[in-house]
Amino acid sequence: MKVYVAQQNYHIGNFSLNQEKMINEVKLAKQLGAELVIFSELSVCGYPPRDFLEFEDFILQAEATVAEIAKHSEEIGILVGAPTRNPQKEGKDLFNSAILLFEGKIQGVAHKTLLPNYDVFDEYRYFEPAYFWNVIPFKGKKIAVTICEDIWNLGDNPLYRVCPMDELMKQSPDLMINISASPFDYDHDEDRKEVIRLNVMKYRLPMIYCNAVGAHTEIVFDGGSLVYAADGELKHELNYFSEDTYLTETDQLIGSVEISRQTISKISADMRVAKTTDPAKITGYLTNENNIAQIKAALVLGIRDYFLKLGFKKAILGSSGGIDSAVVLTLAVEALGAENVTSILMPSAHSSAHSVDDAVQLSKNLGNPYHTIGIGNLYDGFLAALDPLFSGTNFGVAEENIQSRTRGNLLMAIANKFSYVLLNTSNKSELATGYGTLYGDMAGGLSVIGDLYKTQVYALAHYLNKDKEIIPGNILTKAPSAELRPNQKDSDSLPEYDLLDQVLYFYIERRKGPSEIISMGFDEALIKKTLRLVNLNEYKRNQFCPIIRVSTKAFGVGRRLPIVAKYLS
Amino acid sequence: MKVYVAQQNYHIGNFSLNQEKMINEVKLAKQLGAELVIFSELSVCGYPPRDFLEFEDFILQAEATVAEIAKHSEEIGILVGAPTRNPQKEGKDLFNSAILLFEGKIQGVAHKTLLPNYDVFDEYRYFEPAYFWNVIPFKGKKIAVTICEDIWNLGDNPLYRVCPMDELMKQSPDLMINISASPFDYDHDEDRKEVIRLNVMKYRLPMIYCNAVGAHTEIVFDGGSLVYAADGELKHELNYFSEDTYLTETDQLIGSVEISRQTISKISADMRVAKTTDPAKITGYLTNENNIAQIKAALVLGIRDYFLKLGFKKAILGSSGGIDSAVVLTLAVEALGAENVTSILMPSAHSSAHSVDDAVQLSKNLGNPYHTIGIGNLYDGFLAALDPLFSGTNFGVAEENIQSRTRGNLLMAIANKFSYVLLNTSNKSELATGYGTLYGDMAGGLSVIGDLYKTQVYALAHYLNKDKEIIPGNILTKAPSAELRPNQKDSDSLPEYDLLDQVLYFYIERRKGPSEIISMGFDEALIKKTLRLVNLNEYKRNQFCPIIRVSTKAFGVGRRLPIVAKYLS
Repeated sequence: MKVYVAQQNYHIGNFSLNQEKMINEVKLAKQLGAELVIFSELSVCGYPPRDFLEFEDFILQAEATVAEIAKHSEEIGILVGAPTRNPQKEGKDLFNSAILLFEGKIQGVAHKTLLPNYDVFDEYRYFEPAYFWNVIPFKGKKIAVTICEDIWNLGDNPLYRVCPMDELMKQSPDLMINISASPFDYDHDEDRKEVIRLNVMKYRLPMIYCNAVGAHTEIVFDGGSLVYAADGELKHELNYFSEDTYLTETDQLIGSVEISRQTISKISADMRVAKTTDPAKITGYLTNENNIAQIKAALVLGIRDYFLKLGFKKAILGSSGGIDSAVVLTLAVEALGAENVTSILMPSAHSSAHSVDDAVQLSKNLGNPYHTIGIGNLYDGFLAALDPLFSGTNFGVAEENIQSRTRGNLLMAIANKFSYVLLNTSNKSELATGYGTLYGDMAGGLSVIGDLYKTQVYALAHYLNKDKEIIPGNILTKAPSAELRPNQKDSDSLPEYDLLDQVLYFYIERRKGPSEIISMGFDEALIKKTLRLVNLNEYKRNQFCPIIRVSTKAFGVGRRLPIVAKYLS
Repeated sequence: MKVYVAQQNYHIGNFSLNQEKMINEVKLAKQLGAELVIFSELSVCGYPPRDFLEFEDFILQAEATVAEIAKHSEEIGILVGAPTRNPQKEGKDLFNSAILLFEGKIQGVAHKTLLPNYDVFDEYRYFEPAYFWNVIPFKGKKIAVTICEDIWNLGDNPLYRVCPMDELMKQSPDLMINISASPFDYDHDEDRKEVIRLNVMKYRLPMIYCNAVGAHTEIVFDGGSLVYAADGELKHELNYFSEDTYLTETDQLIGSVEISRQTISKISADMRVAKTTDPAKITGYLTNENNIAQIKAALVLGIRDYFLKLGFKKAILGSSGGIDSAVVLTLAVEALGAENVTSILMPSAHSSAHSVDDAVQLSKNLGNPYHTIGIGNLYDGFLAALDPLFSGTNFGVAEENIQSRTRGNLLMAIANKFSYVLLNTSNKSELATGYGTLYGDMAGGLSVIGDLYKTQVYALAHYLNKDKEIIPGNILTKAPSAELRPNQKDSDSLPEYDLLDQVLYFYIERRKGPSEIISMGFDEALIKKTLRLVNLNEYKRNQFCPIIRVSTKAFGVGRRLPIVAKYLS
């Protein structure tokens, strides 16, 4: 059987666009002689639709879209992802389903069993898990259709009490097809290949795996769909971070290699094994070039899809002459084009001359428009207006924040005037410790590098410079500073970033507690101070814009902590 | 058996405080001759602990707290709520449990079966649902212990496929105890009483129901714990919105009234029935005095606990002379004391004289400190700074927003300088339609009335004035205006609030789609415009502060929609 894998980029809730994309692809597949086309999870409505699923109108539109696509299935099977209704009174109203369309009708439906409900996922909020399983017969083959997470319940710490492929095996399928919306993080691609290979080896069946591609607010799907032969050989890997298609003949996926059970169980035991707890290795792990290259691709796609899918063309950002804004500007220029990214330089009395020069040089290298607006007069105006209340107090955080918020106000005014979107330039180390000003440098519509620790921002800057110097060398070498008071350095307030980022990684990505981190050899006072800062500043992050997610644990929808609490704080 | 119901206000993650509160109450209960003390759901760590549950350190502290409390159980049973570990390899790592402590040891444990995972709830993110059930024997009685949602699976649209009380009935219990953390909304108290009564009537057993009280960021627990006799008679109802305790003798809860099965099924069918779809009735429903009185109590508790539990004493807010800031100021003064709430008047050239006068009169009525800072010069400064970019453009939203953000900058500067918390004054109608300025009037640490439609804000203002005029009459009667351009009125941009709020209610609380709302008799263009505004402005609400939740569907953690999407927009 000739199966055509369609790895596409959908738009959530944009049924007409998604339908058109899918039908166009079906027509193309027909011309190529395909017998079955497969699309990714919830392809009809886009993933994740979140609470739109609670609207009857939304479900009706999804059903209407499936019906339209079915009209094109007279001569070809089409496997689409869509929400379907639970006919039972008990349980939630919907299933997350794969629907096989053929000869104009629904020929078979498989419901998702394992509903991820961790990190950014909320599927149990909407869907009833499947509790019966049937292969779908098509053209003489019995297909075991599963959806994303369904094939991930392997290894030492199974999250679920059932395994849908084990159930489907009772009906002796010939082939596995998994349709997914599996998001990118810089560990995930290798994990994913390994999980799929393990399924192939466990069940001794070919696997055709169709993933989504494209960014939806914070979540980036990286594509990389896979075709495995029954012997565990990877036959084809589709593109990462872009749309792609592939036609495969399933008869050529039957394997012959005998696999020993021992090998399987050994590999299975390695799954989801904790990564190193050796602090010395963490910086290298966070900044290795393979990861940084993937991160860069994810961020560029994340910016591009944010603008494209919201209908904006132009971005604005504050260019301080520091490393963070330099990296964001460089990525934005790649994603949107130099002419579409305006940088604004807003020096104050505390800005060093080289900061302005560096920012100017950067924009000259990139060829993007820039403007300079000094904030000195505005800052003095605020101090004068506040003098009746502030007189007799010392310069402090309030005065620092006035400068930052004045810049935020200028940037937003320009964005509002010309319909630009303000790109935020905060990094994960700052967001973690609260080293930023709410409504000031924390303003913006999209955070580009909010999931990168400062050490990763440096690594990414070097990576962006690998072919030629785009980011001026001085930006890479000078000590980080917010430049909100005379001779300020980040290290006046924060530990050195190498050390800080290691601690933050163990606390945020790895959820280690203070005693666990101290036992790795870190200073106790440093740990207590750092963890306290992270927890106290939850209120700031709660008002922060969406962050393009590239790690296993980004701030935002995937990390949910109480603001009013007292834990390690 | 003498059972002591302890309805307490906990602090999330503050194990030492919670432990002290619980042990003190156990000592008091002993003195009163109680044989069993019951505390609410997850009392040991506070509810909802959210992702703190993913930290091993947090679980260890919860276990240590249970062990400390157990030391006080030598002569008295203590039923506490705590996370416990799932000993099985399969499934999630934790249960949400009720633990019976007696004679210094754990005597029995019941795990929660029905894990709410809708609206503000995420329990399936952390917990494995119970799949075995046992009554807990104590002092010759068999107690059916359930946790919150476990008793809510009645009626026409059961969310779950199991019913834990049905399972427990197989072991012939003598008594039902339910420990809860059941949040307030202005419909919920009546629902809750009805659900508990229905359980009593279905199982013909007494029910002792212990709820939490207190506010945690956005969620307000309203207490109102209940004791029902087996015949369905309500024996006692504990206080709402404050801590309370009650000692009951279970022998006096055995009922004698015969209940007909028909009555039960009839009432059961009425549960969770949709409320009216008659638009003419909605305004009356939203503003009825019983609901408004409860909302007021919830908001005062919400403000008070936010400050108390975060360790702040003083609030600041912008007082515009409009209805929203007047209501927030009045509530804040009640919650924190007049001396602890500073209002700042920030007139511009577009402010009418009466606005300032009204704001001054309000603060005189309340006796709270106020200051006036004109923003004219600052606004002119921004326009001058932006002139190189803005010259030749017309006055528009950008200029309006500069005024609003200048006020935000001033308020935040004062808040930062003196460690005040800025209270936000946006209402739900504005938040829904995006009629507000990000980082301007949308700034603040806590939104007090962000879950009240404008018509409800008026009703609350009248309620606050019911004994004497606190809010000046002029504020109640003048047409709403943002005063950001000459002679501006809200009705220039938005439909009249009566009509708008009805539409918003059907879309937000009731999740009706456009065709459903139009079929109620609303104008099609109005519906399309309104729903589009709501969906387009998701990005603004995403950066908004926590909102004290009083309705069945507040903006914030309980309503999760994609920002990058195209649905009804």
